Amino acid sequence: MFAEIITIGDELLIGQIVDTNSAFIGKELNKIGVSVYQITSIQDNKQHILTALSDAAKRADIVLITGGLGPTKDDVTKNALCEYFKDTLVLDTSVLHHVETLFKKYSDKPISEINRQQALVLTKATVLHNKNGTAPGMWIKDGNTVFVSMPGVPFEMKYLIEAEVVPRIISEFKRPFIQHKTFVTYGVGESALAERIEDWENQLPAMIQLAYLPSLGYVRLRLSAKSAIKELLESTMATEVAKLLVIIGDITYQEDGDNDVLEVVIGNLLTKKKMTLATAESFTGGKISELLTANPGASHYFKGSIVSYATEAKIDVLGVSKQLIEKHSVVSEEVVLAMASNVKKLFKTDFAIATTGNAGPTKGDSDVEVGTVFIGIATPAHIFAIKLQQGSQRERIVNRSVNKAFELLYKEILKY
Amino acid sequence: MFAEIITIGDELLIGQIVDTNSAFIGKELNKIGVSVYQITSIQDNKQHILTALSDAAKRADIVLITGGLGPTKDDVTKNALCEYFKDTLVLDTSVLHHVETLFKKYSDKPISEINRQQALVLTKATVLHNKNGTAPGMWIKDGNTVFVSMPGVPFEMKYLIEAEVVPRIISEFKRPFIQHKTFVTYGVGESALAERIEDWENQLPAMIQLAYLPSLGYVRLRLSAKSAIKELLESTMATEVAKLLVIIGDITYQEDGDNDVLEVVIGNLLTKKKMTLATAESFTGGKISELLTANPGASHYFKGSIVSYATEAKIDVLGVSKQLIEKHSVVSEEVVLAMASNVKKLFKTDFAIATTGNAGPTKGDSDVEVGTVFIGIATPAHIFAIKLQQGSQRERIVNRSVNKAFELLYKEILKY
Repeated sequence: MFAEIITIGDELLIGQIVDTNSAFIGKELNKIGVSVYQITSIQDNKQHILTALSDAAKRADIVLITGGLGPTKDDVTKNALCEYFKDTLVLDTSVLHHVETLFKKYSDKPISEINRQQALVLTKATVLHNKNGTAPGMWIKDGNTVFVSMPGVPFEMKYLIEAEVVPRIISEFKRPFIQHKTFVTYGVGESALAERIEDWENQLPAMIQLAYLPSLGYVRLRLSAKSAIKELLESTMATEVAKLLVIIGDITYQEDGDNDVLEVVIGNLLTKKKMTLATAESFTGGKISELLTANPGASHYFKGSIVSYATEAKIDVLGVSKQLIEKHSVVSEEVVLAMASNVKKLFKTDFAIATTGNAGPTKGDSDVEVGTVFIGIATPAHIFAIKLQQGSQRERIVNRSVNKAFELLYKEILKY
Repeated sequence: MFAEIITIGDELLIGQIVDTNSAFIGKELNKIGVSVYQITSIQDNKQHILTALSDAAKRADIVLITGGLGPTKDDVTKNALCEYFKDTLVLDTSVLHHVETLFKKYSDKPISEINRQQALVLTKATVLHNKNGTAPGMWIKDGNTVFVSMPGVPFEMKYLIEAEVVPRIISEFKRPFIQHKTFVTYGVGESALAERIEDWENQLPAMIQLAYLPSLGYVRLRLSAKSAIKELLESTMATEVAKLLVIIGDITYQEDGDNDVLEVVIGNLLTKKKMTLATAESFTGGKISELLTANPGASHYFKGSIVSYATEAKIDVLGVSKQLIEKHSVVSEEVVLAMASNVKKLFKTDFAIATTGNAGPTKGDSDVEVGTVFIGIATPAHIFAIKLQQGSQRERIVNRSVNKAFELLYKEILKY
């Protein structure tokens, strides 16, 4: 069974908006055994929408469409759908009631004509209630193909996918079983990893696909298995994973479903061990803290951070000695160790991460080269720092260092 | 002149990776007057790649392809290109030399066969030097259509677009002039805004396209003009912008080219005024700090932040009185005012932002509802706070509040 995704909006094609909807939909479909064959992003243009619908229908069992349902003139999806299905629009009273209720929060006046039109739906459509906005979703069956139209606002689309679309797909389509396992490997490049696992890769059964996903400092290995027989799928996957871990067990950890980032793994570990963490960040600017707190439940282990961006903040707020900074420079092993040690004391935690470095584009309050960074880790037992050269691009210097800091901390937490 | 983008990789279709490459390419092409007609994301599958190439070639003058050029087995783009152009691969000695040089940093041994294959290119291709990686770009002219193959790693693709692809497009294609102006409006919903500017929108010349881009707390209005005559384009745009500003001048600011986010506008203002900023963040977890420091030059105005995630950190590190927190609760106007005031003193700045609130999913050290937040702003002259109810979704609560904090601060800085 195949799905296709069509995302509609001029803003996607001129690059003003990154299409995050497709990735979300792809992920959710995958979980229920539906493969996405193609994602197509097109302009708010009726003719182009018609062509895209017709092309997708030839290849897919279900076509998911987002965007172009807003109340303004640049939104043309609903008219295009009418033409495609040779249908007309009709006022849906329950949608109208919902739109009126949403606007009552802001004003007692009757809603405007433009907002009233949000309640117009295709006569052939099953209306999908959009709790989070005015544009309803529509589920349209046409021959053997199902078309689903959803608003492009991620918050609204996500609600519709989870509450309406996925349950309907599960009840109306027969799907194979799918299983993915992803292993994050660190410290080995893509080609070296490929050589290390070559024999294993060559003997993989056809049911299992392998993909390499390199990122900053990591290579993810993704195994995807698909089968009509659940037991066969699970046993084959288990066998191959066991073989793989013999080869790469020393340089990998397994991603845990949606919790697929190291900071979540760290958070879960700290919560389980009832241990705590604080950070002192300079050039990473709060990114480590922000990633940790993006996860619900961070308050169980994360106490806080001092972002000491300016040198005087390292002295005044973090209590690093001025003499130490003058002697060794603000980007030095001595300073990052003092930052880690001080922030651990200030927040009374078990672990601490500290960063200092130069992310460029120019040299700052230190003579070190752009890209030179120090990462310090404090644990209940000891404190240490490493020095790295992270290239010349600001964003990469920060992201690489954040990844490395999490990796260093992760290995330490495992010891407790 | 039309371009199409084809991004190749199973990871895009299962939603493991968000396709940020297309938005980057779309933005860069737009700047030089090239419109992207369609973006197509497909699997690492030879037959699918062949179909996508052939479809795109029917519609576009230039087809930009990313992904599938890595050294491992799941990368099949180069073989698909060979079949499509009825071509063969040949070893490019300059690419081989570059790959060898890259690997010399890590090892003295000769490079492996798998890495040597990175230097294989189509005989019909003009090789585009990839400074940032092992897979070269390829520029292939086939009849009236140009195909460009690039690696999918964003860092490598970006370099190739900027250094190699854009300059070649400029020299080889005739393009119309394009101008975009984007206005960020705040405090008015999409439909109310549409009604307010309806008369103006109806009289817009065909040369100018208008788009509404709603986001959390904002609606962006984007005007796009395209013309073969530069002077006509510029004067028409200037006339329409002047008319628009009469209607919405009180609720908008203009985005400045690539500097299209409020924190950059704030940073530029503070730098110009030689004034400084610090933040005290609770539920925003360092996000305000991280966004500010993501911009080069942040050290001119940003001193740092205290992320006081735990209640005890607000007391121990930020110096908020325990009695005050006990009396009013940790999520209160009194506490956010103390946070703003204290962090401004600690970092010796002109302005400060403070946040406290409950981003959920459960109630924390306070009895307030999930979504209740306070934002405090300290200026050289005074200090104030607002209370907001930001819904029930963690990510939206944080992002909305960060946007609102920047908006409040922006209006204050304008007074100095």
